[in-house]
Amino acid sequence: MILKLSSSSDIIKGRQKDFTGVIIIADLATGFLYTDFYQLSMAQLYFQEGIAETPARFEHFFRSYPNYGNHQAGYCINAGLGTFLDWLKQARPTETDIDSLAQLTDATGQAFFQPAFLDWLVAVDPYKQLTIRAIPEGRVVHPHEPLTVVEGPLALAQLVETALLNRLNYQSLIATRAARIKQAGEGNLMLEFGLRRAQGQGANDGTRAALIGGADYSSNTGLSCQLGFQPKGTHAHSLVQAFLALGYSERQAFEKFADCFPHNCILLIDTIDTLETGLPAAIEVFQQLRCRGHQPLGVRLDSGDLAYLAVRVAEQLNKAGFEQVKIVLSNQLDELVLTQVLQQIRREAADYGLEPERLINRLVYGVGTRLITSAGDAALDGVYKLVALQKNSRWKPILKLSETPGKVPLPGCKQLYRLYDTRGRATADLLSLAGEKLDFKDQLELYHPYQTNSRRLSGSCLSQVEQLLEEQLVEGRQLVDSQQIEQCRKRCQSDLGRLHPGVRRIINPHGYHLSVTAQLYSLKKRLQRRLK
Amino acid sequence: MILKLSSSSDIIKGRQKDFTGVIIIADLATGFLYTDFYQLSMAQLYFQEGIAETPARFEHFFRSYPNYGNHQAGYCINAGLGTFLDWLKQARPTETDIDSLAQLTDATGQAFFQPAFLDWLVAVDPYKQLTIRAIPEGRVVHPHEPLTVVEGPLALAQLVETALLNRLNYQSLIATRAARIKQAGEGNLMLEFGLRRAQGQGANDGTRAALIGGADYSSNTGLSCQLGFQPKGTHAHSLVQAFLALGYSERQAFEKFADCFPHNCILLIDTIDTLETGLPAAIEVFQQLRCRGHQPLGVRLDSGDLAYLAVRVAEQLNKAGFEQVKIVLSNQLDELVLTQVLQQIRREAADYGLEPERLINRLVYGVGTRLITSAGDAALDGVYKLVALQKNSRWKPILKLSETPGKVPLPGCKQLYRLYDTRGRATADLLSLAGEKLDFKDQLELYHPYQTNSRRLSGSCLSQVEQLLEEQLVEGRQLVDSQQIEQCRKRCQSDLGRLHPGVRRIINPHGYHLSVTAQLYSLKKRLQRRLK
Repeated sequence: MILKLSSSSDIIKGRQKDFTGVIIIADLATGFLYTDFYQLSMAQLYFQEGIAETPARFEHFFRSYPNYGNHQAGYCINAGLGTFLDWLKQARPTETDIDSLAQLTDATGQAFFQPAFLDWLVAVDPYKQLTIRAIPEGRVVHPHEPLTVVEGPLALAQLVETALLNRLNYQSLIATRAARIKQAGEGNLMLEFGLRRAQGQGANDGTRAALIGGADYSSNTGLSCQLGFQPKGTHAHSLVQAFLALGYSERQAFEKFADCFPHNCILLIDTIDTLETGLPAAIEVFQQLRCRGHQPLGVRLDSGDLAYLAVRVAEQLNKAGFEQVKIVLSNQLDELVLTQVLQQIRREAADYGLEPERLINRLVYGVGTRLITSAGDAALDGVYKLVALQKNSRWKPILKLSETPGKVPLPGCKQLYRLYDTRGRATADLLSLAGEKLDFKDQLELYHPYQTNSRRLSGSCLSQVEQLLEEQLVEGRQLVDSQQIEQCRKRCQSDLGRLHPGVRRIINPHGYHLSVTAQLYSLKKRLQRRLK
Repeated sequence: MILKLSSSSDIIKGRQKDFTGVIIIADLATGFLYTDFYQLSMAQLYFQEGIAETPARFEHFFRSYPNYGNHQAGYCINAGLGTFLDWLKQARPTETDIDSLAQLTDATGQAFFQPAFLDWLVAVDPYKQLTIRAIPEGRVVHPHEPLTVVEGPLALAQLVETALLNRLNYQSLIATRAARIKQAGEGNLMLEFGLRRAQGQGANDGTRAALIGGADYSSNTGLSCQLGFQPKGTHAHSLVQAFLALGYSERQAFEKFADCFPHNCILLIDTIDTLETGLPAAIEVFQQLRCRGHQPLGVRLDSGDLAYLAVRVAEQLNKAGFEQVKIVLSNQLDELVLTQVLQQIRREAADYGLEPERLINRLVYGVGTRLITSAGDAALDGVYKLVALQKNSRWKPILKLSETPGKVPLPGCKQLYRLYDTRGRATADLLSLAGEKLDFKDQLELYHPYQTNSRRLSGSCLSQVEQLLEEQLVEGRQLVDSQQIEQCRKRCQSDLGRLHPGVRRIINPHGYHLSVTAQLYSLKKRLQRRLK
């Protein structure tokens, strides 16, 4: 994302370079100033108080699974860190950024930011000065766990809050939804089609997250090319309409499409009437294709009763000898719709002499609006909280009170473990204090993070224990490549496979356990008493 | 957004220039390829059939007002066109874009796109070849009306569909929500705080739209600076926590903030306990400020019972002589929450000796998640349909059938009028065929677009008739500046003021009339019969 130019005179419009002369491909609205204003106000105060560079630790976590109204997720898929780090890498102020800040005034017309503070902003570099540990993208995560831990100078760690939440909240939301829809579709091919209904350029983050969580491909051409995926798509109703207006028939429109794309022929058959005109025309064109030695790929249904139509379409395709032709479904699909469509096909297929499982296996899903916007719950409630601060070279744990017990974050520097049972299934995640030595072979006492009860778990019930937080950014070295998402997809599939099926359930899933150690539990209680 | 470099050797990384050598500040994922793949497939087919440059007309419209579950909007605010045109201006393929397309293969491994087609893509320029008429941003709009009319070569008008919908659907959704929330807040100052919960970089589109529809300011620093707005904000809980950890008190944290920002002092008072610690500390600090000749600006409440706390906080502030200090409310605000908060304040204020209207007038709202994501209905169902195509130099109207009557778009080239009654209120929008001569002084026959009934309206009931569609892009001349949004804000306020209060109502609004002329109505019926 960074272009180096030979000299500043090369730039005719704009002054998009940082103060070392490196060109930043970001403008006022997408670069260093992509943040809430109060982050800059607080940074100036910390600077003036001489505590801007006091070591601090912030944790990013979410408080509850997405709740889509009539159903709530039982797990989330972590995503977005790579995109955030790409942003952070070039989030250095340009002259334009600093000029803009310098021009801001307070209520009396005086400069809001002091020159000394702006000089400091120019001199620092969050990308080089912050250390970030995080749960890798694609992994299954749960509420109240630290997903991202940012450590470094107080003012810098505070400054990056907004962009971090912006990138990680949304991508985790969409990766989670994609995993659920993929699951409801019983693993069939799933295409992400949401670009037109996405929230502006957030679409690219959404597509990336969908590919991590469960989509196999996307119609989003640029992003697919960038990430090395073949972009996918069929054609629109307008194609048939255009040829009709020019005096051709629906079948002739299909013929022209098949001539142009003999090896990638998927026909949208609901422009006029799916069963009366579209399907017969498609079958004729498929027969011509077959005579020329090509295998037609599929038909797409974008309206009507998708389950019923899929059955009737399969029936006719089979009669014509096109058992291999895929049936692509689209139109407001999500996990509940897909669950119902597959149920209905299982009930209805036999009435038309079809084997339901074979029919289901040939389905492909085009998933648009409800995935890319996470319809029903359009935001993950991820937050970023100060959990520790260094005073006299010692970390001081920090607690934030709240009238709602579930909103009191867990204080201090922590470690996060995932415990697997003897069948290899994730059985609990465990948070301890950073320095705590845990003996996983012994009996563990696991506390509920927000209630007073605890339970015991014998080490003999465990087959594996792993630490979830990994180093991602250390002294300006980024240990993750945002463009390489194949590994994230694998992590996602692997973690989902190791979840208990009850936790993975689409509707009313069983609750997964997040536990805390006795030491962490009592630190929290102690701090709560002290603050009150 | 465009940098011109002196020579191509200046570019060290990437090849982001178009084929005339102009540098495009967009990458694979945000530039020309920011589109659904099928648009490119269809373009290649049109190119091969020799109809890529056949004049075509597409209309963008939405089918239903956003429905937030327990309440539905009665109007929408049109927004996003300027952002789309900015994108279109630089949506020319770069070498990287074309290389990426050239590398794509079909199911048999052969090149998906033909070199001749790619050469054609490089030679054309949608920005210069398309004509766009549209309803200006900020105006009140209704379902089924053409908001944007794109005319030009078939393949190019088709190619821009995705980006147009992506930008306009989302911004109209958010401008609409902002207008509703502003209305529910009874016109008080409203700050857009949603960046951290927005869908990635779509945040910038969302902030822009919020500013058009009703937000006075935003915390989004870069976008605010770009659009010439003062970014706004207070401070976070973490500021108080950081000072607590360093051994200071909440009051001392407030003092430090007040010292740093004596003219912009808004204190967040709910970090420990709003009424027990936060408010008394804020009042002490305000008294110190006053002694030094400064006027404290406000307190912010971000948790708890906002209505009750606002009353109690006002009571104490008044006792201390701070009647002018604003009370900023935040935490999951939307139009329903605000309606309830104001109702409760009207019931409860007198119990504490307060005049409710004076209290309400000093409220300021910080609105985050529920605005920027349009919680409850996260997508506007805007579509883009082919309505006419030229054959032998004559426009042929096009109809798309659907089993749902409300999904059959209105065919042909059209004009759109807004009719105002004698009190100056918008009474109906009227769609006619493009060439139709209407005598608005005479009696008008208005047809329902999707039902068979019609009604008559006498010209004497009308005070004004205006055409809503205006030229926006003609032969590469853009007649609208996306950065100038003050005029959009004025249009929005003016149009809202001319809506009937029943249509403007937040819950269960009265339906606004969209009518069609007899000629348009019978053209649609004729085409429907012909297609069937």
